[in-house]
Amino acid sequence: MSRNRSGLLCGLLAIVLCAVSTALAAADDRPTPTRQQILDASRPDEWRSLDPAQTLYMRLAHDHLVVIELAPDWAPAHVANIKTLVREHYFDGTSVYRVQDNFVVQWGDPADDPKQAKSMGTAKTRLPPEYTRPMKGIGHFTLLPDGDVYAPQVGFVDGLPVGRDPKTGRAWLVQCYGMVGVSRDNDPMSGNGNTLYVPIGQAPRRLDHQLAVVGRVVQGMEWLSALPRGTGPLGIYTDPALRTPIVSVRLAADVPIKQRLHLQVLRTDSKSFARLLDATRNRHGAFYKEPPGHVGICDAPLPVREAPGK
Amino acid sequence: MSRNRSGLLCGLLAIVLCAVSTALAAADDRPTPTRQQILDASRPDEWRSLDPAQTLYMRLAHDHLVVIELAPDWAPAHVANIKTLVREHYFDGTSVYRVQDNFVVQWGDPADDPKQAKSMGTAKTRLPPEYTRPMKGIGHFTLLPDGDVYAPQVGFVDGLPVGRDPKTGRAWLVQCYGMVGVSRDNDPMSGNGNTLYVPIGQAPRRLDHQLAVVGRVVQGMEWLSALPRGTGPLGIYTDPALRTPIVSVRLAADVPIKQRLHLQVLRTDSKSFARLLDATRNRHGAFYKEPPGHVGICDAPLPVREAPGK
Repeated sequence: MSRNRSGLLCGLLAIVLCAVSTALAAADDRPTPTRQQILDASRPDEWRSLDPAQTLYMRLAHDHLVVIELAPDWAPAHVANIKTLVREHYFDGTSVYRVQDNFVVQWGDPADDPKQAKSMGTAKTRLPPEYTRPMKGIGHFTLLPDGDVYAPQVGFVDGLPVGRDPKTGRAWLVQCYGMVGVSRDNDPMSGNGNTLYVPIGQAPRRLDHQLAVVGRVVQGMEWLSALPRGTGPLGIYTDPALRTPIVSVRLAADVPIKQRLHLQVLRTDSKSFARLLDATRNRHGAFYKEPPGHVGICDAPLPVREAPGK
Repeated sequence: MSRNRSGLLCGLLAIVLCAVSTALAAADDRPTPTRQQILDASRPDEWRSLDPAQTLYMRLAHDHLVVIELAPDWAPAHVANIKTLVREHYFDGTSVYRVQDNFVVQWGDPADDPKQAKSMGTAKTRLPPEYTRPMKGIGHFTLLPDGDVYAPQVGFVDGLPVGRDPKTGRAWLVQCYGMVGVSRDNDPMSGNGNTLYVPIGQAPRRLDHQLAVVGRVVQGMEWLSALPRGTGPLGIYTDPALRTPIVSVRLAADVPIKQRLHLQVLRTDSKSFARLLDATRNRHGAFYKEPPGHVGICDAPLPVREAPGK
């Protein structure tokens, strides 16, 4: 009888184990959720609204709008100077004058000679380098465990890709596609924010901690990345007529509330972001036969959306 | 006296050491040679002329020319099928119909439904997957010692970026900017070469060994990368009028000799390529204060030039 009972228990156990293993197998075979499915399942508090005081609207010809989120924690003097330039309408009437394929788009003052440069008003013309900052105090660092070719550690802080080096105690924003940097001459003090650039191809990681990075394009990247390539050295347009006019650059906080966009970025310390990374890393399904197994710092999706109900 | 002599020797030694260390310091302070300086110093035999039998000329509207070098060693059945399609003028009158920002440009047949597809003539409509190949027999592998996030090993073979896995004995072409891949549906047999794509942003490494890679754009990449982005799902143009017409695709060998281009690629097993990698990795000079110290597989320059005297 005990045999029987034990036989029955064994049978039940087998059924349970079988059910569990079937369920696991089913879970394994289930396609990885898509990016949209993960975002649809995200909670409202996993999103962070852009701060109007740290958001730029750059309006190009043809009413093409590029939205940039500034990163004052990473280059405070440069960001402050850019905001001064913006508030004094410095960029209005300047242009996108350099488009180098698989490298960068650059805009602002095209003058090489400081004597020919457009007046910067009350903004500073020289600033100390802000290429790295102390690791301490940068907020929650979501470590990316997949490794990196260039930095000892990479991860995300507040929606931005970050490299850091525990040996030096320094951290920096990584030069991924869509990040906004401050152009400069050879003199490290020469970067002042009157000329900005954004990578439009493979991330130019060789620029990491060589220039001040001041933010990220969060909308309208295609109005920069699809511009015709310049044929002069460094992709500079040889014919100034080819430049794309910048109609205006405004701080969102200076725009009437009704005209503001209501954009949100997914918090990189959220569970949904972790799910997104995991789905990117372990993607499998009808198309992906073999999960890539890894995700690079510049390959991670950094979702932006319009605030629901706006 | 021996003291004196030894003192003299010591003094001479000190001078020599001092001179050597000054020379080293001077060498260290000397800016890294530029890419152009390295290429200017290269030897003729470090360059490989494109094989007309493996080179495609894709002519877009406005006489924009895209030159593609095929890689038959990596996907022989796909390359053979593409050459059949080209010889039967399959691509003439098709279009670039998908441009997804920071991902890919895609051209060929836009039909999702095979019943609506353009006739492929004598070419095959289904092909076995050729996503990887045996490591053995791929020729000289120039290992990149800088590491990689996705592949156990990366390096260069005959001018192309390659990943390999000594455990499985397999190798594959890496999906860097400018590489040409074969689009397919979920069915791995569905890729046949009638639709091709090229990455135009950050290398989509998650596609590595998931698709057949058949070559590389060696000239005219800007005619693809700067096309307006599509606004439909996957960057497909919602309005067919936005597509960029493909006037013709021809094999260079089928073009009269006088009309052929004479392009050369730098051999990746050459000393000049090693110098180029080293200069990229250890770049320093007036602008670069701190060498990046590393170079990624998709960050390495793969120079192309017109043959001197042509």
